[in-house]
Amino acid sequence: MDQQKFPANAFINPSGTNKEGIENFISKALHRIISVISSSETRSPLPGEIDIPNQPIPEESIGDEQLIDHLETLLLSSINPSHPGWLPHMDPPPTTASLIADFATASVNNNMLSVEMSPAFSRLEQQVVRKICQMFNLGQKASGVLCSGGSLANLQALAVARNKKLSTKEGGIQELPKKPILFASKVAHTSIQKAAMILGLGQDSVQPIPVDSDSQMITEELEAAINQAKNDGKLPFCVVATAGTTTTGNIDPLEDIGSITQQENLWYHVDAAYGGALVFSNSHHDKLAGISKADSITFNPQKWLYVAKTSAMVLFKDQDHLVNSFKVGAPYMEQDEERINLGEISLQGTRHADILKLWASFQHIGRKGFQQLIDQSYQLTNLLHDKLKVIDCIQLASTPKMNIICFRGQPKWITSARWDEWNKGLQEYLLENHKIFFSLPTYNDSKWLRTVILNPFVNKQSINNINQGITSYIRKTQ
Amino acid sequence: MDQQKFPANAFINPSGTNKEGIENFISKALHRIISVISSSETRSPLPGEIDIPNQPIPEESIGDEQLIDHLETLLLSSINPSHPGWLPHMDPPPTTASLIADFATASVNNNMLSVEMSPAFSRLEQQVVRKICQMFNLGQKASGVLCSGGSLANLQALAVARNKKLSTKEGGIQELPKKPILFASKVAHTSIQKAAMILGLGQDSVQPIPVDSDSQMITEELEAAINQAKNDGKLPFCVVATAGTTTTGNIDPLEDIGSITQQENLWYHVDAAYGGALVFSNSHHDKLAGISKADSITFNPQKWLYVAKTSAMVLFKDQDHLVNSFKVGAPYMEQDEERINLGEISLQGTRHADILKLWASFQHIGRKGFQQLIDQSYQLTNLLHDKLKVIDCIQLASTPKMNIICFRGQPKWITSARWDEWNKGLQEYLLENHKIFFSLPTYNDSKWLRTVILNPFVNKQSINNINQGITSYIRKTQ
Repeated sequence: MDQQKFPANAFINPSGTNKEGIENFISKALHRIISVISSSETRSPLPGEIDIPNQPIPEESIGDEQLIDHLETLLLSSINPSHPGWLPHMDPPPTTASLIADFATASVNNNMLSVEMSPAFSRLEQQVVRKICQMFNLGQKASGVLCSGGSLANLQALAVARNKKLSTKEGGIQELPKKPILFASKVAHTSIQKAAMILGLGQDSVQPIPVDSDSQMITEELEAAINQAKNDGKLPFCVVATAGTTTTGNIDPLEDIGSITQQENLWYHVDAAYGGALVFSNSHHDKLAGISKADSITFNPQKWLYVAKTSAMVLFKDQDHLVNSFKVGAPYMEQDEERINLGEISLQGTRHADILKLWASFQHIGRKGFQQLIDQSYQLTNLLHDKLKVIDCIQLASTPKMNIICFRGQPKWITSARWDEWNKGLQEYLLENHKIFFSLPTYNDSKWLRTVILNPFVNKQSINNINQGITSYIRKTQ
Repeated sequence: MDQQKFPANAFINPSGTNKEGIENFISKALHRIISVISSSETRSPLPGEIDIPNQPIPEESIGDEQLIDHLETLLLSSINPSHPGWLPHMDPPPTTASLIADFATASVNNNMLSVEMSPAFSRLEQQVVRKICQMFNLGQKASGVLCSGGSLANLQALAVARNKKLSTKEGGIQELPKKPILFASKVAHTSIQKAAMILGLGQDSVQPIPVDSDSQMITEELEAAINQAKNDGKLPFCVVATAGTTTTGNIDPLEDIGSITQQENLWYHVDAAYGGALVFSNSHHDKLAGISKADSITFNPQKWLYVAKTSAMVLFKDQDHLVNSFKVGAPYMEQDEERINLGEISLQGTRHADILKLWASFQHIGRKGFQQLIDQSYQLTNLLHDKLKVIDCIQLASTPKMNIICFRGQPKWITSARWDEWNKGLQEYLLENHKIFFSLPTYNDSKWLRTVILNPFVNKQSINNINQGITSYIRKTQ
């Protein structure tokens, strides 16, 4: 063999000959990474200069030391979600267990494709998924799979819905006599449109249902739309409800929508990517009443359970629907007699063992720990809500049902045409003067500030700081 | 606030107050994990007892120490790909850079959904992807995205193909006058069928094309099938060629298939999930001649480039096709003026920054290091091939074109009806007596042993060990 062209630490030698070098290399790297994260608060929620090394694929190794330097530079060029002022999105700082578990997952590089290639993790995934199905009261036949993100979870749910209700698995959509159609509120996540596009239904197959002033689907409008579609010669097959809308965190009337889908014999999918976490809190889980009527549920622990990306899943009330309406066999894989190969019932084939960081986070924080995190964020949200309510020129986009507040200033001393600009100014002012970063989504054709109280290190003082920032900007611009 | 119900190390405090505890916890955990991997060779390629802790979601934290113990148990219950005898699949031991980078990725928990949520990693992904497009000679307009696994890469390629060729993005498939159909060799990966099913084309829309004795698509059969489909009133829109078939690692005639798709105005997708790595070797990249004709390519560094799962991508010759035929906008995201939000042109929305471990592996090993790894595995494959060729009762499934050998014994002293059983016996004998594990796929209705020489610690002695194992089993059963 030729002389080795890559560094001694490129791989962990299975006979232990480079163990000391590997331990040194990894320890140095991890020390630097931990230092970056544990000093998050000294920086801004957003990166300063974005510095990208300019050689994507060098001919020769750059060596251990320079790799660590470059990694540090990249982390400092990234958003800083551990900063308690980074509050714009449903993207939390990660549990420590996630970091360790993702390192462990990479180290054995097992494959969720089949039981043979991930004997422990395949079992673990099914064990955890079934437990979560129970927490949603989906019954004894329920099961599901982890997916690399919520868009895939929604896509898989709608694929099963389409195949089950319209028998399209073998022969496809083209021969259907009528155009299939599904319903979701007008503020449902765009992944529903994307899924409809991918599934060959077309983006125009998603019929948007009007919402009330709290962004909740109006059930009378849903009923009317279903009837109208039938009269128009279309083929309704599915309704998507949302538990935790993207912009305002509202929950559709899950119970009532479930009754309508039962009456109409439509598939009922609940996108609880965000709100699903409420089943972990005894104080708040009743906000999801009715979710047990769902045929399928999307739930993302990567959001309110603080598990590092990606941690998402799709659950089915009846595993037989998943298997019969989705499974594509892979003859090159060993068949396990007792257990199904997860790659055969998943959108994905080869798949990262995302289960380990989810499982490790559950073990390390416990159900009660997550309950506390959820309850605490409600308390802080209420506190901020109380403060905002008494500021004259502040308008709320909806009554908060979760840990999300979406608001905007409508200052009377400025013409309404300039309110968007004023709110953008407020966003910038909070970042520059208070190291607080909110997002600025467009909602009902206007710009709103949006904050998601999703950081264990946010406390009463942080809320006071936010309040101070807003009031001093108001004074400054008055 | 209530008393904290979870351990002090549950999160890294952004003001550094628990830094020492975090460093201790993480160091202990990583030391244990590294010890498991660096002693891989003392164990078997497969796990012994599979031991799963039985409390998926405990009420209270189990604490730091027990979490580390459980993680170790789970790793020991996993397959052991660092063992040089673990050679059954396209699943390698991971680069050390992957482990460090996945830890780093989790630590900042950025989101590939948008530039705003991953400013460094979004840029890095585009930089690396464009460089790889150049290596495939796809031209100046080429680009792509990373996907969480090759099945998603194939799915996205076929979604773009369908939307571009049949204009199904907005209105869907149902109104097409004829049934759409695509072509792939009969040994193409099952993810093509799965994709067709998901895309609403139906599993029956994939027309399997016969292959020659080396598992390569017969182009005359392809031309005949396209003509037949047109005569049958169907709508051909795409051909999928494979560079690195799953069972035998063969390559379809890429150049000739490219010419046919150009003539017929069909989308040309090349599934180079496995074989794409050959562009990293100056000695072997000409095996992919013709791939530059592709409209889209799937390529998975998670296989022959040893990057931890998942590391996969889909590349498009013309980024405009991807954008115009796939993009679904997300109004809640900040739009970057210069850069597209990757979540809008990806199957996935929220996505793990898989780019970091790919980039870090490139930096740490270098293009020449990967070339050496590839060239070395060819040398060892040739060595094993030479040894197998001279064993009388051994039959090869095809002439190896990569680092995969698929073979079976057809011992004359046993009735052919019992050959499958004999080969299963050989698989078990090699595992028990030589710690060598091959897979046993079904191919042309028979059981074959399959080995993928995909471990940097396999050497000439390992090949001799394999050879010895096979010859002693033959003697034993004679």
